[in-house]
Amino acid sequence: MIVVMEQDATADQIQHMAERIESLGLKSHVIHGTEHTVIAAIGEKREHMKESLESGAGVSKVVPIMAPYKIASREVKPEPTCVSVGSLSVGGGKLGVIAGPCSVESEEQLMECAHAVKAAGGTALRGGAFKPRTSPYSFQGLKEEGLKILAAAREETGLSIVTEVLATDDVDMVASYADVLQIGARNMQNYRLLEAVGNVDSAVLLKRGPSASMDELLLAAEYILNEGNQNVMLCERGIRTFEGHTRFTLPLASVTYLHHKTHLPIVIDPSHGTGHAYMVPDMAVAAAAIKTDGLIIEMHPRPDEAFSDGYQSLDFDMFNETMSRIKSMANNVGMTI
Amino acid sequence: MIVVMEQDATADQIQHMAERIESLGLKSHVIHGTEHTVIAAIGEKREHMKESLESGAGVSKVVPIMAPYKIASREVKPEPTCVSVGSLSVGGGKLGVIAGPCSVESEEQLMECAHAVKAAGGTALRGGAFKPRTSPYSFQGLKEEGLKILAAAREETGLSIVTEVLATDDVDMVASYADVLQIGARNMQNYRLLEAVGNVDSAVLLKRGPSASMDELLLAAEYILNEGNQNVMLCERGIRTFEGHTRFTLPLASVTYLHHKTHLPIVIDPSHGTGHAYMVPDMAVAAAAIKTDGLIIEMHPRPDEAFSDGYQSLDFDMFNETMSRIKSMANNVGMTI
Amino acid sequence: MIVVMEQDATADQIQHMAERIESLGLKSHVIHGTEHTVIAAIGEKREHMKESLESGAGVSKVVPIMAPYKIASREVKPEPTCVSVGSLSVGGGKLGVIAGPCSVESEEQLMECAHAVKAAGGTALRGGAFKPRTSPYSFQGLKEEGLKILAAAREETGLSIVTEVLATDDVDMVASYADVLQIGARNMQNYRLLEAVGNVDSAVLLKRGPSASMDELLLAAEYILNEGNQNVMLCERGIRTFEGHTRFTLPLASVTYLHHKTHLPIVIDPSHGTGHAYMVPDMAVAAAAIKTDGLIIEMHPRPDEAFSDGYQSLDFDMFNETMSRIKSMANNVGMTI
Amino acid sequence: MIVVMEQDATADQIQHMAERIESLGLKSHVIHGTEHTVIAAIGEKREHMKESLESGAGVSKVVPIMAPYKIASREVKPEPTCVSVGSLSVGGGKLGVIAGPCSVESEEQLMECAHAVKAAGGTALRGGAFKPRTSPYSFQGLKEEGLKILAAAREETGLSIVTEVLATDDVDMVASYADVLQIGARNMQNYRLLEAVGNVDSAVLLKRGPSASMDELLLAAEYILNEGNQNVMLCERGIRTFEGHTRFTLPLASVTYLHHKTHLPIVIDPSHGTGHAYMVPDMAVAAAAIKTDGLIIEMHPRPDEAFSDGYQSLDFDMFNETMSRIKSMANNVGMTI
Repeated sequence: MIVVMEQDATADQIQHMAERIESLGLKSHVIHGTEHTVIAAIGEKREHMKESLESGAGVSKVVPIMAPYKIASREVKPEPTCVSVGSLSVGGGKLGVIAGPCSVESEEQLMECAHAVKAAGGTALRGGAFKPRTSPYSFQGLKEEGLKILAAAREETGLSIVTEVLATDDVDMVASYADVLQIGARNMQNYRLLEAVGNVDSAVLLKRGPSASMDELLLAAEYILNEGNQNVMLCERGIRTFEGHTRFTLPLASVTYLHHKTHLPIVIDPSHGTGHAYMVPDMAVAAAAIKTDGLIIEMHPRPDEAFSDGYQSLDFDMFNETMSRIKSMANNVGMTI
Repeated sequence: MIVVMEQDATADQIQHMAERIESLGLKSHVIHGTEHTVIAAIGEKREHMKESLESGAGVSKVVPIMAPYKIASREVKPEPTCVSVGSLSVGGGKLGVIAGPCSVESEEQLMECAHAVKAAGGTALRGGAFKPRTSPYSFQGLKEEGLKILAAAREETGLSIVTEVLATDDVDMVASYADVLQIGARNMQNYRLLEAVGNVDSAVLLKRGPSASMDELLLAAEYILNEGNQNVMLCERGIRTFEGHTRFTLPLASVTYLHHKTHLPIVIDPSHGTGHAYMVPDMAVAAAAIKTDGLIIEMHPRPDEAFSDGYQSLDFDMFNETMSRIKSMANNVGMTI
Repeated sequence: MIVVMEQDATADQIQHMAERIESLGLKSHVIHGTEHTVIAAIGEKREHMKESLESGAGVSKVVPIMAPYKIASREVKPEPTCVSVGSLSVGGGKLGVIAGPCSVESEEQLMECAHAVKAAGGTALRGGAFKPRTSPYSFQGLKEEGLKILAAAREETGLSIVTEVLATDDVDMVASYADVLQIGARNMQNYRLLEAVGNVDSAVLLKRGPSASMDELLLAAEYILNEGNQNVMLCERGIRTFEGHTRFTLPLASVTYLHHKTHLPIVIDPSHGTGHAYMVPDMAVAAAAIKTDGLIIEMHPRPDEAFSDGYQSLDFDMFNETMSRIKSMANNVGMTI
Repeated sequence: MIVVMEQDATADQIQHMAERIESLGLKSHVIHGTEHTVIAAIGEKREHMKESLESGAGVSKVVPIMAPYKIASREVKPEPTCVSVGSLSVGGGKLGVIAGPCSVESEEQLMECAHAVKAAGGTALRGGAFKPRTSPYSFQGLKEEGLKILAAAREETGLSIVTEVLATDDVDMVASYADVLQIGARNMQNYRLLEAVGNVDSAVLLKRGPSASMDELLLAAEYILNEGNQNVMLCERGIRTFEGHTRFTLPLASVTYLHHKTHLPIVIDPSHGTGHAYMVPDMAVAAAAIKTDGLIIEMHPRPDEAFSDGYQSLDFDMFNETMSRIKSMANNVGMTI
């Protein structure tokens, strides 16, 4: 860390900070600049030190040098992680395509989707049984009944199942039906839930919160990894900005950035990332063009009758066409689905 | 709702939408404009209808007319709600001042704070026993031991206790020690937790998520109210924007807006809202000037030794001076603390 | 337009608004809903009407139905516009690749770049002669001397020249040397400048301001089109958000959205859109994968000696490799460079 | 500056950077940390060095230590600047209140406003003669005719005149009628215009761009100051964020921050900062409570007939009531109007 002192910091304040740095087990190194004095704090970083030093008398700011996460870091594990579970492989040259409806609405609806996903070449089936809804008056999901339908669809099609888990109490039950536990954007910093899914055998799909920084996302992953579960996929699903013509703003540079910083595989969600069905295919294809490790796409047999997210769901024709474009693009850039 | 059709929508599509609206129990009213046709859907709104209509063939967009929340709405209950619990009153002309350290670190540290808060005229004591931390390697709080210390401080000073609850499993335990359960910004859309605190007798302080819209905040409150607990305070603690010189951006217009839209009392958090101790007093005073119902302020006997958030915590001298300014301002605008 | 009245609007207020709408030459149509009354205003929209109606007594909000721009709209001109000037063609199936240094620094530096762009298959040369710099103490460009160097490079390589114009006074001079006048992000709403470039024969590359909405961008284009110049290219170069790991956030969904709404061609700027050289190739390729009409890329013979923007400039090896990927991608999706 | 090297930077790269730093006239100081090497660059900072160093091989990032602006800095001139021109004084304990209509629409309309401002105790009259409008089809102002009306209003009431200048060509003309030249948010980085108003005797009101950082605002001021004009007022008018219930987000912490960093006076614009007349009074009062140096408020005799911005304009009754609150607040905090 670099501790930047205020321009009018006194010699006493500077000495005091140097001593505090040493008392934290770091070495201090004072540099007198033309207008400001800075103190380099050398040693293995631990997170709470930054905060502690920042409140020191005469301190202007503290600049961290090292990334705050460890196990997730590419510096620690340079080779990419591939998460493989049943029909789904994500990472290390494999492009996983997860598709299905926002909500499991009925056995019939889900089975239609499962067969369509399978036929088009998707590698996993998504579907929400526990739905976190902005309004208490909206449809909240079929709950365990929905999980049973998902398991039946796996039985019939062989597709791995991805579904969201909302609460620590449900982790074991959801894990008993599903292959991949999704942590939704609203729960990205629900640390108890992260710890809970860090202690099961299922893979985890961790969605970025709409205002989370990349460091916050990687530290959320670190909560899971730190409990022992190494099968973690990161999902970029868009951030909240002033843009009004898309539901969220989808920064595809996240693929490039995360591939640079972490060995964990990256999944792009073009459905929430745009919020409009007509934009979904392009964003899926653009992500494939830069070797995203996975895609998660909402589709529905009849979007205009969907219980949730119909406006961003592809119908089967659009989905089939999108899968063709994705497969062609994967082929072009040397990925296998 | 107003359903706006695409410019090239066919007569069939328009008729189909009108029929769908009727099938949802609403009355439809078609208006042919110069370039677009719009259909007014008249009747009591239910949330999922908007989504359902939005995905219809030929639909450009759906414009909701009514607010999506009900119990929280000023239209339903025009008179302001005052949340009163022990020494703390928030709303209806009473300005509650909640202060204390970010984390409970030790009995000694908390007692120092409690006495300082009491002496300066604060009306409740805050302190975190369960700490949601961005990094798994940061201090996570003293947990139940911290709650016991908080209860002891209430015993000694008579101050009501405000503390965060992180998980449904902890709600009963935390409620057995504290007067006000805080739902942190990270958990604003942790709906299970909202439902859980909706079923206890304690008051609830609900913090706005850093990228939540006002409708989302009010719908989160609605989850709590809908379970029966009417003692809900809303807390504006800043939103995440591109601004780099403050930790978050604190929109004080939220006080004015929320007083317009809801009867629930509003609490401003200038500590998280700015992230710098030197900015906290001004933001507290500005909020008091426009009759915020409450303030929640971080302070610490020795900010540069704080386990967390030291950089935004006031020391006792700054806190005393800030309380003087707040009391003077409250007096000027006709509020009582 | 749809005028939504407040819940407690009086019959008088409703009638008054209906009359105001009629007095503006529109037809009014009153619809009484369960809780709110809305008034549809039917007829050709003119911008200031919305503002005028919005301030009426008892009005809650006014919802525009039609897009505020006209000449730029795809509804008015469905077929895509191709801007062609010398070696550069952008739009209608042609992918224009504009590349070169941020600033023209010397004849030698620019000629090196021009030959490298030409050799790698780029179709136009960019280079700043008038530089808008955040600080008055930064390098401000070689001005007319820079323009002469650019013209000499065109002479030698045949590449069309793209360069920024900062002020109305310079428009004629810059137009006498360059093929495409760039309006920078800082000047997107400098309406006098827009009008000035609307009155010359040169093509115009209009960059989106970092907090401009799409409607604002298209209305800025409308200022140029409205003066008579129809050779306008829109450039997405990233928006300002809370993201700290990229200089700006590059929303590639803008390609899809703009192709939907306007016939004008779209150019993506991955250099400013990310601010890091290592991210530029991926964003260029992703944009090509979804048929962007153009790309504008910063490169430099020795980025670490660049007078400006070195950190986001490709060196020649990276540029050559990026051009290979772009050409391959264009080929895959059926575009010609 | 602190140059942070990549973890895998070679000894050669480190030495090369140290030499580059020395070649720029700075002293270099290499510190080997546990995982990263950092190099302190000591000496007077010049802006383009940061960019130049950032693109060096093996460099991870460059952290500036000193503020990039000089003349505007409080470190250079600790005592606050008071801008005084005619009836208007802003800064140094004086609260200037500038009010008037968005646009000058007619002599009658402006005179009504001028008398109302004067009677209520405002200290300057605002009114737009040259209007920068998002749409080319909106009302663009009365131009010189509007300036003449403004000058006549000054003649009659003695109020100083504040009006916007859009283009370098108009600076002399506008300066011949007005006392304060306003640089609008859209032109904050129109550097030619900044230089032009830096060379006249009039005072300047510089509005923050909706996505400008504080450093960018202060560097824009630096362009004016650097030309010789020291009568510069900074205006916070809100930033663009995801918030949809206000037109912009008004961060009042800007007052506190700017008072900390610069000696220039700060003016708050609650009209654009909220976009709703009913929110304006509170934001004006809150700003006064923390000793803003100035306020600029839109008002209109009949807001629902205003040519522009009617929805955020106060009518005379609201304006009078707001002025009473502002005067009372100024009195409470020891400011004089």
